[in-house]
Amino acid sequence: MKEIEALWNEVRDLSLGNSSRVERLESPPTPLEFLRGFVSPNKPCIISNAINHWPALCSWTNHSYLMHVLSSSSVSLHLTPNGRADALVPLDNHELQGASPPSASSFSPETTASSSSLCFTSAHVERMPFPEALSLIFSGGGDCSSNQRFVAYAQQQNDCFRSEYSALADDCDPHVPWASEALGCIPEAVNLWIGNQHSQTSFHKDHYENLYAVVTGEKHFLLLPPSDVHRMYIREYPASHYRYSWDTGEFTLELEKPTRYVPWCSVNPYPSPETKDDEMSKFPLYFNGPEPLQCTVKAGEILYLPSMWFHHVRQSSDERGCTIAVNYWYDMQFDIKYAYFNFLQSLHYRSALKSTSSEDLHEDSDIF
Amino acid sequence: MKEIEALWNEVRDLSLGNSSRVERLESPPTPLEFLRGFVSPNKPCIISNAINHWPALCSWTNHSYLMHVLSSSSVSLHLTPNGRADALVPLDNHELQGASPPSASSFSPETTASSSSLCFTSAHVERMPFPEALSLIFSGGGDCSSNQRFVAYAQQQNDCFRSEYSALADDCDPHVPWASEALGCIPEAVNLWIGNQHSQTSFHKDHYENLYAVVTGEKHFLLLPPSDVHRMYIREYPASHYRYSWDTGEFTLELEKPTRYVPWCSVNPYPSPETKDDEMSKFPLYFNGPEPLQCTVKAGEILYLPSMWFHHVRQSSDERGCTIAVNYWYDMQFDIKYAYFNFLQSLHYRSALKSTSSEDLHEDSDIF
Repeated sequence: MKEIEALWNEVRDLSLGNSSRVERLESPPTPLEFLRGFVSPNKPCIISNAINHWPALCSWTNHSYLMHVLSSSSVSLHLTPNGRADALVPLDNHELQGASPPSASSFSPETTASSSSLCFTSAHVERMPFPEALSLIFSGGGDCSSNQRFVAYAQQQNDCFRSEYSALADDCDPHVPWASEALGCIPEAVNLWIGNQHSQTSFHKDHYENLYAVVTGEKHFLLLPPSDVHRMYIREYPASHYRYSWDTGEFTLELEKPTRYVPWCSVNPYPSPETKDDEMSKFPLYFNGPEPLQCTVKAGEILYLPSMWFHHVRQSSDERGCTIAVNYWYDMQFDIKYAYFNFLQSLHYRSALKSTSSEDLHEDSDIF
Repeated sequence: MKEIEALWNEVRDLSLGNSSRVERLESPPTPLEFLRGFVSPNKPCIISNAINHWPALCSWTNHSYLMHVLSSSSVSLHLTPNGRADALVPLDNHELQGASPPSASSFSPETTASSSSLCFTSAHVERMPFPEALSLIFSGGGDCSSNQRFVAYAQQQNDCFRSEYSALADDCDPHVPWASEALGCIPEAVNLWIGNQHSQTSFHKDHYENLYAVVTGEKHFLLLPPSDVHRMYIREYPASHYRYSWDTGEFTLELEKPTRYVPWCSVNPYPSPETKDDEMSKFPLYFNGPEPLQCTVKAGEILYLPSMWFHHVRQSSDERGCTIAVNYWYDMQFDIKYAYFNFLQSLHYRSALKSTSSEDLHEDSDIF
């Protein structure tokens, strides 16, 4: 549909101008600059020198400091076989028994994943003392790959920095002052992420304004504006979670009962060489369309990730094998941009293509 | 097309909530409040008590003051037979000779007005000393309707307040301070409007953020968000202008040569009783869709009219028969909202209806 393709390109032109890079600010913007230049136009940026005063930048690279301060804290550890939680995983057919596809009245065929294929899979989550969690992050992701049974990621997207990790409160700001003033509120949630280079996050969007501060290691983002929604091939996948057995060291996949369907992006931007051709033919709008924005956020930098932008995240660890970040979720405004997004998403890509080809436009003189 | 109708309704819900009225602020917002609450979400508001300190509020109701201060100023006076400039006017066929319709390659049929019908007509504009202009505003629009040969409107949308009317500079602020700080710039243009109750402005939109301050009299606005673009039936009309003869007291219509086509809204929201049925059948999306927002801006109030909103303006005069307003045009941001608008406008209303009916959605299982 040429109109939607024109939209992809126009949003890029307007958000990026002549550059193909995320704009970088060498110091924090004023609240007005941030609101006017980035939040209102829904445009990402990377800000340097905004968190230089955080004690965390030094102290959190010292694991004995973390072990000490969090010695009596209980935290949520996420375990997966491969570092991919909240991701699509092939599902054996027999596991779907009892999970009947949603009725035609509630889901149209285009948005329901085929029952033979994939499910949306969350990590095995276990609460444990922080020192134990940290050692599992290292033992799972260390160099001794023969011992690697899982990838562990200490995180919980439920405001965990202000709950599980409250002992670290003095090491960072409780909010991002210029962002709070711009947005007129304090964060709805502050989340801490402690992991290693094996964890990654599949393409998704959040209904929050996100300020993502990297403390140690690096985060590598792929970003797509909300107007690229058709390129993400969002489908409904049955929800499941990994279950890890400490006895056998094996993961099993458990479908949620009753079945719950989760709308999720189908595109893996880094397919393996064996699956690449197949993925490219299944998701041509992604692979043949404009490149996603790529950026790396280094320790001491903040990414402003605007609400509704699709993002895929990989990470590199520091020399100690660790990646730590804090992100601040602020409530977004549900305004005309959101209404336009919903409208765009409601459109049928291929039918629109059929109906608005240039021939039709010129043949039909009475459009209203 | 049900998706576009859903968009009309969602934008209303998000911009207005449970109210059907334009939000009113009893005092000027801070720059951050204005940017966050209104500019960023592209939402109108009326602000009271923001210009109480303007000397204009008192002095401009005194016509001898205006006559005195502007005694040596030359201003642009707009003359029309009926108060409707920049409006669609029936055109005799013979006047179109030489004005061939645009070629099919540059205009699709849906956007070109039929050559048998209407043209876009600007006022007869004449520079004259201000005292003469003011007396013509009163003699044209006064109670002695038998003498009324024209409606005169002193205005020029070319920053006239800072040029033709610079002698009045001390009577108002040169810009709206909280708006300038929010938007990060001073106005691109400041325009003065001196007229009477007979002038009105047909539906159109501007690519500016607009702060519209009423000094005396009242302005009555109909407002539609940009997402209602299909309801405005924007078509290409040949440009023309009135020519007034001081000798005969008659207007003639002159088509521009070479022909220039102006895209303009086709809807007259206040059709005469004789034409109402015809207008309602020609423009059902307007007349059968959600009501426009209506608001009256009184002397001493400012309307924030967001960029790209369609607006129709009528006015009431004060007890001396006069309506005066100053409006500040600030550059708008061409951001994702603008890209979404362009996308929406590029869609073909009826074809979209055909292609995305619910039957199609459920019959076609492979949409991409």
